[in-house]
Amino acid sequence: MKCTVIGGNGFVGRNLAFSLIEEGHSVSIVDRNTEQHPALQSRTVVGEAQDASFLVEVLTKHKPDVIYHLAANSDIAAGVEDASLDFGDTLMTTCALRAALQRRPVQQVVFASSSAIFGISDSPLQEEPPHVPAPVSWYGKAKLASEYVLESLSLLQPYCGILFVRFPNVVGPLATHGVVFDFVRKLRANPSLLEVLGNGHQTKPYLYVSELLQGIEFFRDRLQPGVTRVNIGPPDLIDVRGIVAEVCNVLGVEPRVTYQDSPVGWIGDVPRYEFDSSAMQEAGFTIDTTSREAVRRAAQALALEPVQP
Amino acid sequence: MKCTVIGGNGFVGRNLAFSLIEEGHSVSIVDRNTEQHPALQSRTVVGEAQDASFLVEVLTKHKPDVIYHLAANSDIAAGVEDASLDFGDTLMTTCALRAALQRRPVQQVVFASSSAIFGISDSPLQEEPPHVPAPVSWYGKAKLASEYVLESLSLLQPYCGILFVRFPNVVGPLATHGVVFDFVRKLRANPSLLEVLGNGHQTKPYLYVSELLQGIEFFRDRLQPGVTRVNIGPPDLIDVRGIVAEVCNVLGVEPRVTYQDSPVGWIGDVPRYEFDSSAMQEAGFTIDTTSREAVRRAAQALALEPVQP
Repeated sequence: MKCTVIGGNGFVGRNLAFSLIEEGHSVSIVDRNTEQHPALQSRTVVGEAQDASFLVEVLTKHKPDVIYHLAANSDIAAGVEDASLDFGDTLMTTCALRAALQRRPVQQVVFASSSAIFGISDSPLQEEPPHVPAPVSWYGKAKLASEYVLESLSLLQPYCGILFVRFPNVVGPLATHGVVFDFVRKLRANPSLLEVLGNGHQTKPYLYVSELLQGIEFFRDRLQPGVTRVNIGPPDLIDVRGIVAEVCNVLGVEPRVTYQDSPVGWIGDVPRYEFDSSAMQEAGFTIDTTSREAVRRAAQALALEPVQP
Repeated sequence: MKCTVIGGNGFVGRNLAFSLIEEGHSVSIVDRNTEQHPALQSRTVVGEAQDASFLVEVLTKHKPDVIYHLAANSDIAAGVEDASLDFGDTLMTTCALRAALQRRPVQQVVFASSSAIFGISDSPLQEEPPHVPAPVSWYGKAKLASEYVLESLSLLQPYCGILFVRFPNVVGPLATHGVVFDFVRKLRANPSLLEVLGNGHQTKPYLYVSELLQGIEFFRDRLQPGVTRVNIGPPDLIDVRGIVAEVCNVLGVEPRVTYQDSPVGWIGDVPRYEFDSSAMQEAGFTIDTTSREAVRRAAQALALEPVQP
């Protein structure tokens, strides 16, 4: 199968590219970042995914069967300060892809969506919750708009299979951001102090990246024409204080840990959410790794990687 | 017919509301601005159109046959500095409407789109130009994404008629922004000096508001299920220096006029564009008023309105 991964130099993108190559697929990567992982360098087309003409060129040349659209602003907190990050990197990459696919159709499109499209909810988030979407962050807003934008492709190309995968925080090797990555980096720089954003009671599901990728391929393999939405998530939650304990244990350090008063790490952060993954399970896919185990394995993997500046 | 105008306290919105009332329709208005025109006050529901739950309430109460979605950031230059204006006011109002209409369908949706969705082009802009869209400003990007978002509604509700009206600069009474409005306001404050943004050679089509509204109703009356796109524009162009001459003539002033070196008034401005309105004409609708006449009539109307602070 010929696959193109847009945003293939990000955390999930690199892991996905390696996994697809391992499965024997022909993989090309689109990313504007020139500092690609050495093993993926030769497969990467460097360019701006907000540019529809550039994407038309890539699709014309590589003729992929499947597009994985992972390009997005991953720094949610920075997006709070500057809406252009999510508007450009998350939404306008999707609009450009929508415009390019109108010219150069593919068989399947996989889009990395998010639980953030629904906003704050007291109950576990379903694929189609009873309340209307009310995303809080620009990140969530850009992902919601992106889903609608890609959905419109189905009008033109009803035989295209479009998969919206909603997943929570993802952790694992090759991470470029996120709470586990931040803690590992901070503690390797200074093992005696860890400053935590928020009061540490933020409680969320964490998914190990290889399990996310297995889930994506499970649903992509079974994809029907039209739009399919699925939550891929672990069976439980962990709070930030639990993550601190796991990371410190893996690194063998006992720092002084400081917390803030705020129940959230930044404006637009959600203090707690739970995923309803019953649709995933009913379809026959399960995730056994708990959020705690995922965090521990991610800390172990990241501790073996070279220290990042 | 029951009509709801979202953004009905803006320039085009107020003119549309008055025109629909005159035609004998039942009109309700949604706008967050509390300083509504006195004659429209009693029809206005004050609220935030980015809030899908609020829009569901409005649709449930008013049960409109037609929605006119005009809510948008109208200050394109300010949107260049702060992407959140177009992301929020233009795009997220559209996403909220899309989500609300999923719950409470209507028969027809009219969306005020823009020529800006295509970006810069050497040839007159058609409804579906041969090049892929490459909007320059956040304004154009938000309008493009909004079209895709509303298009996705057609998948769920194939019998809904969705009209995308692309129009150029609109001028006329009750204006709140735009070059003619700015010149009239500046010259009434100081008749001896007019400072113009850009070199004055920016050349564009200008449409008189009442003709836009006639055009909208012409195409809405004939609307088929699914999405229809149409350019509504005048037969010619005028440059900014021509606008200066018309406005000065109407006001009877002879100011010192200063220009800048730049070919555009602000970053993201387009120095020249032309509209292809052949589809409009083939459908049987024509606009006879030239851009120059539209500017002159607008200046006359605005000169009679109370001085704005």
